Amino acid sequence: MLYPNNIKKKVKKNISFANRGMDLESLINDANKYYLETDKAVIYKKPTPVKIKKVTYQDNIPKVDGYLNQKSTLDYVGLYKGKYIDFDAKKTLNKTSFPINNIHIHQLEHMKRIIKHDGITFLLIDINNEIYLLKGEDIIYYIDNNDSKSIPYNYIKNKGYIINYSYNPVLDYIKILDKVYFKGEKNEKN
Amino acid sequence: MLYPNNIKKKVKKNISFANRGMDLESLINDANKYYLETDKAVIYKKPTPVKIKKVTYQDNIPKVDGYLNQKSTLDYVGLYKGKYIDFDAKKTLNKTSFPINNIHIHQLEHMKRIIKHDGITFLLIDINNEIYLLKGEDIIYYIDNNDSKSIPYNYIKNKGYIINYSYNPVLDYIKILDKVYFKGEKNEKN
Repeated sequence: MLYPNNIKKKVKKNISFANRGMDLESLINDANKYYLETDKAVIYKKPTPVKIKKVTYQDNIPKVDGYLNQKSTLDYVGLYKGKYIDFDAKKTLNKTSFPINNIHIHQLEHMKRIIKHDGITFLLIDINNEIYLLKGEDIIYYIDNNDSKSIPYNYIKNKGYIINYSYNPVLDYIKILDKVYFKGEKNEKN
Repeated sequence: MLYPNNIKKKVKKNISFANRGMDLESLINDANKYYLETDKAVIYKKPTPVKIKKVTYQDNIPKVDGYLNQKSTLDYVGLYKGKYIDFDAKKTLNKTSFPINNIHIHQLEHMKRIIKHDGITFLLIDINNEIYLLKGEDIIYYIDNNDSKSIPYNYIKNKGYIINYSYNPVLDYIKILDKVYFKGEKNEKN
């Protein structure tokens, strides 16, 4: 093995920004691993975009020097039941609303494109110790029709779909996808 | 702008392995840019997977130290007409066949999964100064049914679809996708 486990562990500890939404991220990664192993879906975290400046080999390990490329889109991409899935995980410590500046403009533009080309896009929002799936369509609708700088918790509660924890995987968000996107016109909420 | 153009240029020049299939890669990147700008599709190169070890800031630029993560899947992913697209570009200097060791085992496994979950996966193969789209299904069929260590040029010619250069974009591979994947049962070749 080129990469002993401790390298991976170091990674997570050393980068302070990675701690934002870390728990939700782990839950999603675990779920995706489960979906892959049980052949339910192919969904994975996009690699963090790094502009590679130089690769050097130390003891056969390819060492990278580069720069973070800010213009990432959404963190997760994949394929489920023939559909293209593209989403992100966001956490807020606010209790009454989700600040819209958590979503970058290029992320919103990306979501609009995904919707236009008939893909599935949403956010998983960690708010008040609850995790909601909020459809890209509902996020864009709110932002386009309100001057507010944040999406009220009540809007998320009403338009979104709460994901209850289960046994394996803990965050079985595909169950919610089934309910929201794969039941034809029978979606109760819209 | 955090990232002056010369950083990008440096990247491409300094990494020797990036030169494999570079021309084909540039053509695909140009086509993808065109598709994005003309709102035809959302297809992009996956970032090279880097295990980030440390991020430090120099003059506000986030500098990355990390390691190349070998286990990438295929290079390009995207969404076209509601379908999930996942493919790679491969170049061979061989004139009579395409060596199968150009395709990593985990890439083949990934292709099988994509097919199973009803996505679109293929290779763009640069051989004899021609570029062919060869469907994942035909690649897997050949490998599963032959002991040979390479796919004959004739197989690629017969089963694959040549992509003729056009004006803008030069490599308009979406035209071939339309022909191969978006004409229902009317696919002439299979």
